[in-house]
Amino acid sequence: MEGAQAVREAVRFGHVHDLFVTPAAADRNPGLLIEARAAGARISPVDDRAAESLSDTVTPQGLVAVCDLLDVPLHRALTGAPSLVAVCAGIGDPGNAGTVIRVADAAGADAVVLAGDTVDPHNGKAVRASTGSVFHLPLARERDALAALDACRAAGLVLLVADGDGELDLHDPAAAAVLGGRVAWVFGGEAHGVPEAVAERADHRVRVPIHGHAESLNLATAAAICLYASVAARR
Amino acid sequence: MEGAQAVREAVRFGHVHDLFVTPAAADRNPGLLIEARAAGARISPVDDRAAESLSDTVTPQGLVAVCDLLDVPLHRALTGAPSLVAVCAGIGDPGNAGTVIRVADAAGADAVVLAGDTVDPHNGKAVRASTGSVFHLPLARERDALAALDACRAAGLVLLVADGDGELDLHDPAAAAVLGGRVAWVFGGEAHGVPEAVAERADHRVRVPIHGHAESLNLATAAAICLYASVAARR
Repeated sequence: MEGAQAVREAVRFGHVHDLFVTPAAADRNPGLLIEARAAGARISPVDDRAAESLSDTVTPQGLVAVCDLLDVPLHRALTGAPSLVAVCAGIGDPGNAGTVIRVADAAGADAVVLAGDTVDPHNGKAVRASTGSVFHLPLARERDALAALDACRAAGLVLLVADGDGELDLHDPAAAAVLGGRVAWVFGGEAHGVPEAVAERADHRVRVPIHGHAESLNLATAAAICLYASVAARR
Repeated sequence: MEGAQAVREAVRFGHVHDLFVTPAAADRNPGLLIEARAAGARISPVDDRAAESLSDTVTPQGLVAVCDLLDVPLHRALTGAPSLVAVCAGIGDPGNAGTVIRVADAAGADAVVLAGDTVDPHNGKAVRASTGSVFHLPLARERDALAALDACRAAGLVLLVADGDGELDLHDPAAAAVLGGRVAWVFGGEAHGVPEAVAERADHRVRVPIHGHAESLNLATAAAICLYASVAARR
């Protein structure tokens, strides 16, 4: 993990083994270093060149942490009768995956499942787009997207696929009872949406209604609208 | 405008004066060229080097159109008793501005007002992020953000500022009557939100409730949730 924000969340919600820090970054983040040390991290000073070689950003912030891996086994992410889960089914863009994790966190989701060809949540861009949310809720990976759906159903969740051509309108009064129940929302990639086999396996294919001339919404905004529709339906 | 998608929307919803096209792009988009010609565009073949020099993308698509400017005077954008308007108050990131325009279009907004230090909607990244929506609804620019708010109020709109610390919870049952009325939603920049003077001028400061550990939502997802909450409240 790199950068003050991600490292801070890692210290608070994850497990940091080592923290490499430049003198300038140490001066900028005195509280964070104290917190990291108290949480058991080993802190090592490095110079700018070393920090740069550890970083995958253009402007390194001089703070790099070595942490535990983020993901947990799928069955563990889905224990304890989850009531709201987000499933990424083939989201290849790390910025999108990170943003969906951030929105799921904000919506109070119990877990995020990264299924099929979804990007690795350890990807630096995904971590940055999540602004720390990768540490806030259980993440699980499952290469077999249909197996991920089956696990969600076995956990008692109704499966909703976000689909621009879905048969159920998100704002249909009949949808509220479904949305407010225990659900897993399934989101697909930017270009092609959710794979057909996955969409067929779901209980409902739900479309966000489009009222203007836009052809579609982008993945992150559609996911935000869907997840928060479930939040609203619980009130 | 460049690229097949933006040029197609420009031909259908805007006014294209000239279209410069490489032989390869002409082969890929025969229907678009016919449509552009029928709409009165002058079509000029160019080679790859010329197309590249006209483009501001890394991988030019070989299609560049010269169009009318996008924005209209503010009073014109707000004529005809608008019922849903999005106001960008100091959105500097072109990708964010374009995405807000796309979401506003999808939500059926009557107009988007680009106020204060908001990016120019003609910015190539803003146009691309809007995926054609810059052509679908009236866009107006107003450097003075408070004047933009006054114009919205004069048009009969209730002013709602999206604000993480707002006093009104988006999902508060009392909010539904407000959200479902004639409203202008005001969105600020990524880092600092809406300027204080703008927030004070609004009728309500509305927060999207955060249920997990996330500190906030990003601008585009928050805007999507707010605009679609108004769409839902009208049903």
